[in-house]
Amino acid sequence: MQVPSPSAREAASMYGTAVAVFLVILVAALQGSAPTESPFPFHIPLDPEGTLELSWNVSYAQETVYFQLLVRELKAGILFGMSDRGELENADLVVLWTDGDGAYFGDAWSDQKGQVHLDSQQDYQLLRAQRTPEGLYLLFKRPFGTCDPNDYLIEDGTVHLVYGLLEEPLRSLEAINTSGLHTGLQRVQLLKPNISQPALPADTLTMEIRAPDVLIPGQETTYWCYISELPAGFPRHHIVMYEPIITGGNEALVHHMEVFQCAAEFESVPHFSGPCDSKMKPERLNYCRHVLAAWALGAKAFYYPEETGLAFGGPGSSRFLRLEVHYHNPLMIKGRRDSSGIRLYYTATLRRFDAGIMELGLVYTPVMAIPPQETAFVLTGYCTDKCTQLALPPSGIHIFASQLHTHLTGRKVVTVLARDGREREIVNRDNHYSPHFQEIRMLKKVVSVHPGDVLITSCTYNTEDRRLATVGGFGILEEMCVNYVHYYPQTRLELCKSAVDPGFLQKYFHLVNRFNSEEVCTCPQASVPEQFASVPWNSFNREVLKALYGFAPVSMHCNKSSAVRFQGEWDRQPLPEVVSRLEEPTPHCPASQAQRPAGPTVLSIGGGKG
Amino acid sequence: MQVPSPSAREAASMYGTAVAVFLVILVAALQGSAPTESPFPFHIPLDPEGTLELSWNVSYAQETVYFQLLVRELKAGILFGMSDRGELENADLVVLWTDGDGAYFGDAWSDQKGQVHLDSQQDYQLLRAQRTPEGLYLLFKRPFGTCDPNDYLIEDGTVHLVYGLLEEPLRSLEAINTSGLHTGLQRVQLLKPNISQPALPADTLTMEIRAPDVLIPGQETTYWCYISELPAGFPRHHIVMYEPIITGGNEALVHHMEVFQCAAEFESVPHFSGPCDSKMKPERLNYCRHVLAAWALGAKAFYYPEETGLAFGGPGSSRFLRLEVHYHNPLMIKGRRDSSGIRLYYTATLRRFDAGIMELGLVYTPVMAIPPQETAFVLTGYCTDKCTQLALPPSGIHIFASQLHTHLTGRKVVTVLARDGREREIVNRDNHYSPHFQEIRMLKKVVSVHPGDVLITSCTYNTEDRRLATVGGFGILEEMCVNYVHYYPQTRLELCKSAVDPGFLQKYFHLVNRFNSEEVCTCPQASVPEQFASVPWNSFNREVLKALYGFAPVSMHCNKSSAVRFQGEWDRQPLPEVVSRLEEPTPHCPASQAQRPAGPTVLSIGGGKG
Repeated sequence: MQVPSPSAREAASMYGTAVAVFLVILVAALQGSAPTESPFPFHIPLDPEGTLELSWNVSYAQETVYFQLLVRELKAGILFGMSDRGELENADLVVLWTDGDGAYFGDAWSDQKGQVHLDSQQDYQLLRAQRTPEGLYLLFKRPFGTCDPNDYLIEDGTVHLVYGLLEEPLRSLEAINTSGLHTGLQRVQLLKPNISQPALPADTLTMEIRAPDVLIPGQETTYWCYISELPAGFPRHHIVMYEPIITGGNEALVHHMEVFQCAAEFESVPHFSGPCDSKMKPERLNYCRHVLAAWALGAKAFYYPEETGLAFGGPGSSRFLRLEVHYHNPLMIKGRRDSSGIRLYYTATLRRFDAGIMELGLVYTPVMAIPPQETAFVLTGYCTDKCTQLALPPSGIHIFASQLHTHLTGRKVVTVLARDGREREIVNRDNHYSPHFQEIRMLKKVVSVHPGDVLITSCTYNTEDRRLATVGGFGILEEMCVNYVHYYPQTRLELCKSAVDPGFLQKYFHLVNRFNSEEVCTCPQASVPEQFASVPWNSFNREVLKALYGFAPVSMHCNKSSAVRFQGEWDRQPLPEVVSRLEEPTPHCPASQAQRPAGPTVLSIGGGKG
Repeated sequence: MQVPSPSAREAASMYGTAVAVFLVILVAALQGSAPTESPFPFHIPLDPEGTLELSWNVSYAQETVYFQLLVRELKAGILFGMSDRGELENADLVVLWTDGDGAYFGDAWSDQKGQVHLDSQQDYQLLRAQRTPEGLYLLFKRPFGTCDPNDYLIEDGTVHLVYGLLEEPLRSLEAINTSGLHTGLQRVQLLKPNISQPALPADTLTMEIRAPDVLIPGQETTYWCYISELPAGFPRHHIVMYEPIITGGNEALVHHMEVFQCAAEFESVPHFSGPCDSKMKPERLNYCRHVLAAWALGAKAFYYPEETGLAFGGPGSSRFLRLEVHYHNPLMIKGRRDSSGIRLYYTATLRRFDAGIMELGLVYTPVMAIPPQETAFVLTGYCTDKCTQLALPPSGIHIFASQLHTHLTGRKVVTVLARDGREREIVNRDNHYSPHFQEIRMLKKVVSVHPGDVLITSCTYNTEDRRLATVGGFGILEEMCVNYVHYYPQTRLELCKSAVDPGFLQKYFHLVNRFNSEEVCTCPQASVPEQFASVPWNSFNREVLKALYGFAPVSMHCNKSSAVRFQGEWDRQPLPEVVSRLEEPTPHCPASQAQRPAGPTVLSIGGGKG
């Protein structure tokens, strides 16, 4: 981010005052009716200073998002919008700007060079502009899809919001130099599911898991670890809901939080409160990995479906919990204190079903690898019909939430349910997945999985910045492709994942040797990562690896825990056959073009301080 | 095609009269100005009866096609439009219809089931409707591209026109049952190049090559062969133009015609006039393959650029010419006589340059094969920098016309010019190529090829109806991928084509053996077609074959004639590297939506015979 020189800042501030003068309290009458109760239930700060604050609501009936943007310190205008991965290039924007005389609101887009253009089709529609002591409130709406090729399609999953602050009046949008602006991005799930919150039982108790009085380090990224403890003899309960507790003023700094339960085999875990990467951190904290609760920026309370709850406490489970708080502090603010955490709502009246968490996707093994310099390489992991047949109850299980997981090169993740060779349903999909934004998401619709069903999890990776192949594994520079699905009733199936058959991978390395003048090390003492590192990545070796992964049999992990398999033959299993794919949903275009304004909306031509 | 029962016909005829009553002479004022001189230079009959006749013109400035459709016998209305390959499903249509009261003209489209819908965006615009003694003339226009996803994009190359005759009034377009209509298709190059015709020399002579008084057989398809002879001692001339001569009344029957020169090594060729597949046809006619002229339905006169002509006559060339006429007679009309042919315009004053014809694409060899059940498999042939470096003059050659050629499974053909690893220019492209419509097409813009340039010819095949692999070769069930380019000045380079290195193909067959349980015959006595026939076509073998063709070195034919290579090493040549591709041109959307009507145009509400 660039900061304008002081003199430019001064000038901008003068202009800012001028613009404010032009804004009147009510610009356009409310067009269409926004959802009535709690008009903007979702909130997120856009920038770390909290200058821009976004609230929004979703109308699934209208397929429209209603935005309310609070601009605390308006200078010459703002840019706000969405783009594939948070770039200011190829972004879909609304711009509020002034030419020094009037103030305007318009739908715009930026090309691949970041040049901003007014959109010939105006799909962001201003509903109201209101000055208050807090700042300027802009209320506007946008359909999910606009059928305008310059526009972003608002989909389920992560949306990368972008913003920019205009410091000086503009003759035209083309005069905006996005590289010279104060800009930033914020990731959020815009299309929050529209599910009703089950009522909490009368005997609900709460417990706050928070690290008291943390001095947030003055560095961009901190993961803070804190160990807390359930009371001795705490019996088995069901967590039925949890919600974030954010220390006031730190809303833009607390990026995500998770509560983990430690492994039951340790009688005790030492107390600790400090950065998770601290040398002082007791080694035992690494065994606190069973997720109890997870929250990320923009998320609200997480409710378990009324027939289920997440068991904790009681014999056979650890009394120790680890809270992890990710502080995102790009301005490196120092001296800020924080006591954020998660409030668990739990009941001793156990609900009908225990909730469970199952891991779908790829086994953590180097046999699944991504060649370097790929922009969109797809790896797929299977939970086969044979495994679900064996491990799921006859009435099936019901997935109600999902957390997608990859390491740094992950760009998209999707899990599809197939039955009888036909894709039936998307379990969860994120076309703009970011490894920096992994939250547990409630599904819009509970997905039931029956014995014999297949679950196919595909991850798309970008390895443009890698020089060597990226192999599967635990390391941060290795990759994973995982969907943690939250479901009920709990079963003994904890892992249902696959990886290519290692024998077929060796055939691949032999083939690479036959077709290429360079030798690939296929000697028995070479490890798979070494073999991958010696592959010359020409088009043939890339394409054949893709073909191999799409054809070769797989080794299945159909496991009760990470080490214990269900009984049966799980090696050299045929890939599930899928004869019909789900069609990509085509977005509805806004029904009538008549409602849309033909050009930017003029905010005012009047004078006098508003 | 279905013919309605007599009673339905009678009813339809009554309705027809009713509709005619509603049509008035001038419906809409001429909107925008159509090109002035010879408003509709291009003509084509749509149906074999000649009931529908299309004339058109192209405005490249407006990126718009102006259509004039003559409907000789109007019943309850007509459908006319365009689709990918001539289907009435997924077609972009205009419909003229009546509901019994009024008559309407509207932009419509058909879905994948052939169901017709009125288009929410009206891009066909009616300019005039006029009743004359000949029939009803409809004048309308359509931009090349409309940015409406339901619309067809009018591109260079073949366009499949479709039509249907409505026999009865309709409540709504949704009531149209396309499978019950009298329908058909006609292929045409809509976007004729806008090039000026060079003036003919003062000493131009003409010669008519036509088969006199042929009794057109009463069968759908006939190729008629006729041998004619140049006068003894006919000296070397330049053909500077040629045009079709179509016997009046047979315009819808004569599909295409070609004039070939016989091989010079035969002193004489027996005279013959009869079907080309007749048992009586002398074997020697098979040696008459050097193209002098080619015409297809909808084409006009072919002019050589003014600095060049096609040499014929004189020593070293045969005096014998073979005329081939393709009669397309789907109604199996009997007893019709025809004397159609081609009129050559030639001059004894030789022009500066001899024109030449060069063959680009793939060598006719089974090593290039298409797996069965593919919807769009691409094979690519190269004319490498090494060959053009050796064979082209320093000032290069200039390609002014092109004839694309595949056998039955060809669906698209394109030749691209690359220089220094970057695609520079499309030589010729047909995204709706049909093996049933192979005409020599003038290029919109002459393409100059310099020594060191690369010419890349790609053909896309559809083998959904094949059970075994389709290999390259001469047979009609084998495939070709050829672009005959017409250029000047003539060089000794006649063939510049490639095929995959046979050694690498054998590595492929070995690999298929290693990866599959079924055995592929790789024994030395097996032929390549036999080897391909034994490949089990799973996804892996398909993908690896694709990867092989995109990676393995090629064997080049850089030949003076089909048998004589230029000197040099032409085996195991590396594939030309292409680091940057040409971007697909994005069609301009019609600038203003205001001009377009919002719904169908009402033709009239008046009464009284027009």
